[in-house]
Amino acid sequence: ARHYRIACIKGDGIGPEVINEAMKVTEKAASAFGFTVEWTELPYGANHYLRTQEVLPDEALKEIGKHDALLLGAIGDPSVRPGILEQGILLKLRFHFDQYVNLRPAKSFPRVFLPVKADNVDIVVVRENTEDFYIGLGGRWEKSTSQQSFNLKRANYEMSGDLRLEFSPKSNAAAQVGIATEGAVRRITAYACKAAQARGEDTVTLASKSNALSWIYGFWEDVAKDEAQKQGMKLQVANVDALCYHLVRDPSKWGVILTPNMFGDIVSDLLAGIAGGLGVAAGANIGDGLSMFEPVHGSAPDIAGTGKANPVAAILSAALMLGHLKEEEAAKAIEEGVRSYLEEAAKDELPWEFGGKASTESVGDWIAEKV
Amino acid sequence: ARHYRIACIKGDGIGPEVINEAMKVTEKAASAFGFTVEWTELPYGANHYLRTQEVLPDEALKEIGKHDALLLGAIGDPSVRPGILEQGILLKLRFHFDQYVNLRPAKSFPRVFLPVKADNVDIVVVRENTEDFYIGLGGRWEKSTSQQSFNLKRANYEMSGDLRLEFSPKSNAAAQVGIATEGAVRRITAYACKAAQARGEDTVTLASKSNALSWIYGFWEDVAKDEAQKQGMKLQVANVDALCYHLVRDPSKWGVILTPNMFGDIVSDLLAGIAGGLGVAAGANIGDGLSMFEPVHGSAPDIAGTGKANPVAAILSAALMLGHLKEEEAAKAIEEGVRSYLEEAAKDELPWEFGGKASTESVGDWIAEKV
Ligand SMILES: CC(C)[C@H](C(=O)O)[C@@H](O)C(=O)O
Ligand SMILES: CC(C)[C@H](C(=O)O)[C@@H](O)C(=O)O
Repeated sequence: ARHYRIACIKGDGIGPEVINEAMKVTEKAASAFGFTVEWTELPYGANHYLRTQEVLPDEALKEIGKHDALLLGAIGDPSVRPGILEQGILLKLRFHFDQYVNLRPAKSFPRVFLPVKADNVDIVVVRENTEDFYIGLGGRWEKSTSQQSFNLKRANYEMSGDLRLEFSPKSNAAAQVGIATEGAVRRITAYACKAAQARGEDTVTLASKSNALSWIYGFWEDVAKDEAQKQGMKLQVANVDALCYHLVRDPSKWGVILTPNMFGDIVSDLLAGIAGGLGVAAGANIGDGLSMFEPVHGSAPDIAGTGKANPVAAILSAALMLGHLKEEEAAKAIEEGVRSYLEEAAKDELPWEFGGKASTESVGDWIAEKV
Repeated sequence: ARHYRIACIKGDGIGPEVINEAMKVTEKAASAFGFTVEWTELPYGANHYLRTQEVLPDEALKEIGKHDALLLGAIGDPSVRPGILEQGILLKLRFHFDQYVNLRPAKSFPRVFLPVKADNVDIVVVRENTEDFYIGLGGRWEKSTSQQSFNLKRANYEMSGDLRLEFSPKSNAAAQVGIATEGAVRRITAYACKAAQARGEDTVTLASKSNALSWIYGFWEDVAKDEAQKQGMKLQVANVDALCYHLVRDPSKWGVILTPNMFGDIVSDLLAGIAGGLGVAAGANIGDGLSMFEPVHGSAPDIAGTGKANPVAAILSAALMLGHLKEEEAAKAIEEGVRSYLEEAAKDELPWEFGGKASTESVGDWIAEKV
């Protein structure tokens, strides 16, 4: 019998509420499609940090690494300084497990508000997830020469050196460094090409900006073009500014969008907005080792505990997880379940976010029933 | 009598066509409001570069600097490698004249297609225009240790040093560095605060991303908050990804958006898309010395010479120029002229871009007549 061990960080705010429903639906799919799931809950997040000062210890990484996947709810609380938990939990997990693909489908769903004048959106953002400007390298300088030494160990490289900037400044300053390595650009480009092939498409669009950030994105374009050719695919390069312009003007004509890490953050949130909102935006962080699945939305402390949280994005993230575990039938059944629930529900039976009155739990029940 | 000397780079593709109409409308406003304009045309752009290998020589900068303003059409041609003209002309002008404000109003106009479900958009992007990741600092590394030395002279600072990154790579790599100086963040924040005050608003929104790029944008937030307080204004910080999400979901509730250089590039193009397209998107690059005015659109070589180019964005850029020269009445008359033309024109009398059949020239005539 197929058996999966899933680590689970429910996190803060609405995280536990939506993950409970994702677990419920996953269990239903398991019994319907003949596999079993065992959950290991881990306590990390803002609450745990505020109680213990512990963000995400190394033993936790070890423990998580023994599982088949990680399902994560939402991390964050206004009382914790921005950056601590994002970098200490989310980015740490992505980097530690070398989850080099951040996969974010932007699909429209029935009866979900599209802010644009388009009927249907079906785009996949394939975001590089281990480098670019996200590596945390930089510094703050007080007037005059200064120097910052660094040492970064990553699965794809080790990097060290000095960042020495001499300012003859009229003021203080700060700097941030981004890097791209050929290996990382190749593997994410190959992944995007395969994703496009699976959709029957012959072109991948790269979000770039080599007319201004020539060093890093000129390199990206050269390597990605070469890799796409190797994969037998076409690479269309679009400047990220123009791309955002065209995405909002007409989102119907795009397929797979490949992005460096930072542009991917922006483009995928924009597309979540275009395709129907955070209520249905699911995400996956995929590597050769442990992969992590999380809704794109945050912890929404304002509605935590009210039963108004919409669990659909978390449920769709669980579906991405099952697809990754090769339980494609179960994954498909969940997505179809969400679709038919949204289609058939009476107005009151929709989530609050979509104008209905259904509690988090009853949305989970409805969808579980359809699976 | 008030007299202005305007330098003019018409540029490539549709640049000359749309600038001719902007000049026509400006002349009309001059005679209506009692000032005179003298134009100095300069030949730079892709055509000039392909003929002479010259991009923008130092004498040209000197010559331009003797004028009251610069009006620019569009630069670029597919046969020139990306980056050469953008960095050699556009960014060079911005940096040389220390045009630290890139001002991009996103206003909706009558009968112009809004891709979003909103009636009206009236946002101003105030983009820092001299630093961030646009300073051209970075390098490409072949396997193993490498080092890049640099020396940047800017109005706001001088910077030099070594960028030394040691890779123990599985592959080649590239890096890009962005910087922020306190003086530059303060002056653009002060400008944005004043722009918001002029609109009767008490809040400026900063597009940031300190939860991931903590060094540079943490610094930005600290300095901008302090400066906003000095200016008696509130600063609301939004992560750029969430901001793009909310802009597309509901663009009606935003006022002045302050951005670092790169996020401003993205957010302003997105907003041009939301507010009605490149056909009406005007831009200004403002400094304490010579300022530059340019439509946001490119050279559109595919429609150059067909008479289908829409001159409205160029005409609105000329209006921004007149406003900057303190000819506010003239500026207002041009904007009103555009508005009433778009409102009153028969379908066929609209620009091709908006579904009409009016030539570039006749759109200019129509608007000139209204002024
Ligand atoms: C929380 C933040 C660091 C993160 C990111 O920027 O990657 C988030 O916005 C996301 O997209 O998952
Ligand atoms: C051409 C390019 C370098 C430029 C920029 O990125 O600033 C353009 O996109 C703009 O916004 O004016």
